[in-house]
Amino acid sequence: MKFKADRATLQRALAHIHGVAEKRNTIPILANVLLAHDGRALQLTATDMEIAVVEEIPSEAEQAGRTTVPAAVLFEIVRKLPGDVSIEFEQVDGEAPLKLRAGNYETSLNVLPVDDFPAMVAGELPHSFQLPANVLRSLIDRTKFAMSNEETRYYLNGIYLHVAGEGAEQRLRAVATDGHRLARVEADVPPGAEDMPGVIIPRKTVAELRKLLDEDNVPVEISLSETRIQFRVGSVLLTSKLVDGTFPEYERVIPRNNGRIMRIAKQDMAAAVGRVAAISQERSRPVKLALANNHLTLSANSPDQGVAQEELGENSVSYDGEPMEIGFQARYLTDITDQIEAEAEFAFADSAAPTLIHDTQAPAAVYVLMPIRV
Amino acid sequence: MKFKADRATLQRALAHIHGVAEKRNTIPILANVLLAHDGRALQLTATDMEIAVVEEIPSEAEQAGRTTVPAAVLFEIVRKLPGDVSIEFEQVDGEAPLKLRAGNYETSLNVLPVDDFPAMVAGELPHSFQLPANVLRSLIDRTKFAMSNEETRYYLNGIYLHVAGEGAEQRLRAVATDGHRLARVEADVPPGAEDMPGVIIPRKTVAELRKLLDEDNVPVEISLSETRIQFRVGSVLLTSKLVDGTFPEYERVIPRNNGRIMRIAKQDMAAAVGRVAAISQERSRPVKLALANNHLTLSANSPDQGVAQEELGENSVSYDGEPMEIGFQARYLTDITDQIEAEAEFAFADSAAPTLIHDTQAPAAVYVLMPIRV
Repeated sequence: MKFKADRATLQRALAHIHGVAEKRNTIPILANVLLAHDGRALQLTATDMEIAVVEEIPSEAEQAGRTTVPAAVLFEIVRKLPGDVSIEFEQVDGEAPLKLRAGNYETSLNVLPVDDFPAMVAGELPHSFQLPANVLRSLIDRTKFAMSNEETRYYLNGIYLHVAGEGAEQRLRAVATDGHRLARVEADVPPGAEDMPGVIIPRKTVAELRKLLDEDNVPVEISLSETRIQFRVGSVLLTSKLVDGTFPEYERVIPRNNGRIMRIAKQDMAAAVGRVAAISQERSRPVKLALANNHLTLSANSPDQGVAQEELGENSVSYDGEPMEIGFQARYLTDITDQIEAEAEFAFADSAAPTLIHDTQAPAAVYVLMPIRV
Repeated sequence: MKFKADRATLQRALAHIHGVAEKRNTIPILANVLLAHDGRALQLTATDMEIAVVEEIPSEAEQAGRTTVPAAVLFEIVRKLPGDVSIEFEQVDGEAPLKLRAGNYETSLNVLPVDDFPAMVAGELPHSFQLPANVLRSLIDRTKFAMSNEETRYYLNGIYLHVAGEGAEQRLRAVATDGHRLARVEADVPPGAEDMPGVIIPRKTVAELRKLLDEDNVPVEISLSETRIQFRVGSVLLTSKLVDGTFPEYERVIPRNNGRIMRIAKQDMAAAVGRVAAISQERSRPVKLALANNHLTLSANSPDQGVAQEELGENSVSYDGEPMEIGFQARYLTDITDQIEAEAEFAFADSAAPTLIHDTQAPAAVYVLMPIRV
């Protein structure tokens, strides 16, 4: 094969796909990227057998062909070549190294057989719909922090995408939870999604997909079955297995009747939580909230270091419920306030029950946080 | 004790000194900062018993006194308080927690007894001289990368500062080496340094001192004995033990008669080394240099990934010696080219002998690099 590619275009494509290739090559070919030129365009593919990402870029070829080379090395070389150079690729036959030339730079990359590169079969994907990139990005960004890392709870290691409600009430929902906090974001149901099954998108897929969503107005085409999901973003096609598990019935942990309402300026709260939690060296950094009549007192203590507290008054807080105290992990609180633009609304039941939080400007997202004993 | 301090001033002082306090508190009080107010100014001290840093800042006191509190916690709290606030400190007696108040924020920091805080005695320091901060910074920055990390070669774990030569030829020198490369930088001998003993400044002291040298025109007062060194930079006083060892006779590894001279554009070389070394996943990333008539070919290979090479021609390189080949670790080459402004001069003997490198615009610094077999 013999072809040319523009360095910047190739770098952008490799940035999209190299993260999918396996770093630790227990199966060496999974560390490689498949380069396939059909004479018209260059197609790059990386896979870990759970996810495959394919991107097509314009490229002139003298001779079509296919080969595989180490993804990390190719990406590092392409990144380090100067700005606007055109790179020439040449392989004399299927087993020969792939030569890459740019200016006075030349490299011969060892190849592995194309036939060993695993193909990822999507199978039939009966449900198809479109979402604007910015809507999909918002579904991801507002929920991904709450995904679980615990391997034993594999069914929580992703974002649950599904349609809730009936008829005109139907909403597309993204939900993530690790058992300590939950994030639920809604969007309009796009045509074609009405009958989709609920699916759990794995966390690595979420991360790789997110890299493709930096431009706002691109429509993303989504197709899925019970076991596979596919995203087309411009010239990139990401195919992924879904988590084979059942997402818990999360609705029953979302409190409905929490009657004690606090509204608070997000900046003031986040800054105060940071300062108060600074006293504690514990991983969980528990912070206590004491509420009374337009007043919030945040406090924390550490047996070794001392105690800290900060009061926020009516300039920052409105609260007219019963006085109460409740404790949360500092990081869990700030993960949620990070999602909020200006003002947060907290709805409490009591100091042992889940608290409901949302952005007063963005009702599409709700967060649930379990208290801890302080 | 009871006093006030300006937040920004206190943050700057704690940034200077908190790194000296021990993070892992095998001896708990070494994690603390000593706060001492004499009614006129606040003095902050941190020490690990090898280094002590003392900084004085202006502060109004109602009542003088001394106490110690955790350095890391105090620094984190002060950093997180808003911009221009004044912080009030109060301790009712020597065993009570230290209260810190700023706006609606309040903390009580646990204290440890002042009498347990170790004093670092500098003893008599018979040699004293001044260096401008930018000269001292240049002595450090151009040599510190070559310090050894190997604990067994403790006498290389620092920068060797000494006076070389006789009479009008005398020069102040900073030298560091790890046995693979060596950096030597010279400056004028300041009055008072003529008879100073050669001293090895430990690597932690080098790092802490460097934090104090960000302003150009401050004079740094240096005093030293055979076992201690002291730096006064503005209102900060850093006292350190010296490495108790003998620095090797480095002069004999600096080649005198290397006759094969290559001059090379630093940018071109650094970029090419990076691209060629990208093929290799080894830690040492060996790079081969092949020289002939105004031509340099850089190459590297990896059994797994392939081979790479780049040619630099007469636009970047001048060389009219015998054709030769020589190998170096990529990182060692770039550590040195990082020190060079525009053009480097390499003086080679042969492929097994130390190579001499310097900046053609800055003859005060020379670098020696040992080749490796490639």
